[in-house]
Amino acid sequence: MNLLERLLKGDSRAVARLITLVENDDPKARKAIKELYRYGGGAHIIGITGPTGTGKSALICKLTQAYRRLGKTVGIIAVDPTSPFTGGALLGDRVRMQELGDDPGVFIRSMGTRGASGGLATTTNDAINILDASKRDVIIVETIGTGQDEIEIAKFAHTLVVVTMPGGGDEIQSIKAGILEIGDIFVVNKADHPEAYRAVAELEFMLELGRDRKKDGWKEPVVQTCAIKNEGIDELLQKIQEHRQHLIESGQLQKKRANRSRAELVKIINRRVAEAVNGAIGEGGEHHDLVDKVALTGEIDPYSAADVVIRHLLRKGRENLASLNNDYSD
Amino acid sequence: MNLLERLLKGDSRAVARLITLVENDDPKARKAIKELYRYGGGAHIIGITGPTGTGKSALICKLTQAYRRLGKTVGIIAVDPTSPFTGGALLGDRVRMQELGDDPGVFIRSMGTRGASGGLATTTNDAINILDASKRDVIIVETIGTGQDEIEIAKFAHTLVVVTMPGGGDEIQSIKAGILEIGDIFVVNKADHPEAYRAVAELEFMLELGRDRKKDGWKEPVVQTCAIKNEGIDELLQKIQEHRQHLIESGQLQKKRANRSRAELVKIINRRVAEAVNGAIGEGGEHHDLVDKVALTGEIDPYSAADVVIRHLLRKGRENLASLNNDYSD
Repeated sequence: MNLLERLLKGDSRAVARLITLVENDDPKARKAIKELYRYGGGAHIIGITGPTGTGKSALICKLTQAYRRLGKTVGIIAVDPTSPFTGGALLGDRVRMQELGDDPGVFIRSMGTRGASGGLATTTNDAINILDASKRDVIIVETIGTGQDEIEIAKFAHTLVVVTMPGGGDEIQSIKAGILEIGDIFVVNKADHPEAYRAVAELEFMLELGRDRKKDGWKEPVVQTCAIKNEGIDELLQKIQEHRQHLIESGQLQKKRANRSRAELVKIINRRVAEAVNGAIGEGGEHHDLVDKVALTGEIDPYSAADVVIRHLLRKGRENLASLNNDYSD
Repeated sequence: MNLLERLLKGDSRAVARLITLVENDDPKARKAIKELYRYGGGAHIIGITGPTGTGKSALICKLTQAYRRLGKTVGIIAVDPTSPFTGGALLGDRVRMQELGDDPGVFIRSMGTRGASGGLATTTNDAINILDASKRDVIIVETIGTGQDEIEIAKFAHTLVVVTMPGGGDEIQSIKAGILEIGDIFVVNKADHPEAYRAVAELEFMLELGRDRKKDGWKEPVVQTCAIKNEGIDELLQKIQEHRQHLIESGQLQKKRANRSRAELVKIINRRVAEAVNGAIGEGGEHHDLVDKVALTGEIDPYSAADVVIRHLLRKGRENLASLNNDYSD
């Protein structure tokens, strides 16, 4: 059996191998995704986002176990920011997930920005497509929720769960406003804390303020959990299922899928264009002196320089396209 | 006198008017920038970045006054994130800057993402170019330093000052790793705090760790300030001047300028391409059904769909370019 056949049967090693190819920008990855794409579409994509220290990973662990008890297979993608300063990953959350053990129904993968010229959003999207084709029922994407890339990734989710916890009054402030707005379910984890009621009240107040913008009738619930004690997990799972049902009935699932595909498409195109642009203005490119003309001599302004490059790309278009096709399809 | 003539003479109202045109995506703005671009290039661009609450605005205020005492003119661009959740700006830092009063040698402008389809980085870049042409000696760009956009903006600076403060031990953690790496000067503000020495020591330790990556011989200094008492400001200004001197002597200033122009160029091109792509796959576009084919029926995968759109753009290229030129040049 080849990689694709094994993957379609749900083989975790085939999934892992293909995601590695994606991360390494291997042309084989794109060829495989082109072929496997049609087999996906069945998974429910759950985003779980929240600041470091809120117990997201423990929550994901317990939620995964709850899904497993229902007989559902789960894929987990942890989007860890890799600090270029320290050279290592900031979070070692994967370690915590070891209690999921060797269950073949659970696939866990940590994604970094390493080597992915298309950015984290593109590689995460590819990984979702791969897990989807491998017939995972549920795909959980864990993010910290800071940064443009991460907010974009959070938007890929069909159901976005925003995790917070009780604390020094800043608990809500630390959630980026952009994430609050797109959350579907809110979790106050560590709810055995005496101040938990305050965090819940603040969240509900903030949600009430934002509720003039309709979500087609979905009222975002606030769920209290205590992941390490396995409390509130069933209620969370219940709310996720209700949200999925709501998405299907209101026709929003299709809308969310279309939005994700649109974003994906634009990203792929931008990446190819960026490569072509860099080819034109980089070392050895036909317009390699253009940047200096803009930056140093001031001979030409950036907008006129953009005209020059676009004209060049159009002129060279068919050749470029041919070579791009070679890069990606073979 | 027309707008451009007034602007080149340093008229603040002309500067403000043109930045508003940029924010409103007015085609006149691009035409003006094309014309004024050649008059810029003299300003020193200082990025001042750091988390909310570190006293950045007070620091900028005092630093500006110090530059004014040296007879230098100053332009300040405050990049405030506008929360889509609350509908308002999160920070009201501009109010604090009122003590700069009506000094015609100081120009202050707050930038939001409002209305700018090209994103905050593009409008901020345009605003820098405008201030530069209006013959400001120093342009200070204030950012909070979270998010991809903001890190990009921080990279526009010739000298990047990262502001932190003493606190509960998290002071350094709260600075994004990506920002730490690119900072040229570090400030511990509120240095009258008894724990200030710890923040300084932690910063120096972290900087030491990262120092294998050379900055052409520049060793990032850590400066202690107490902005509200006007302490340490002269030393900060001194360090900024030293850094500028270092940039000039090492040839790095030219490199930084080239990097900024390259990023600017790529952004402008990406924006035009995105508009063309949206035209093709949006409502009424020739390939408006493509997203549904990817997302709903699964008829085509995203990579093949990207091929379709790119082929379409190349075919339509000359027409599109003509209309794009009309949008931007007239």
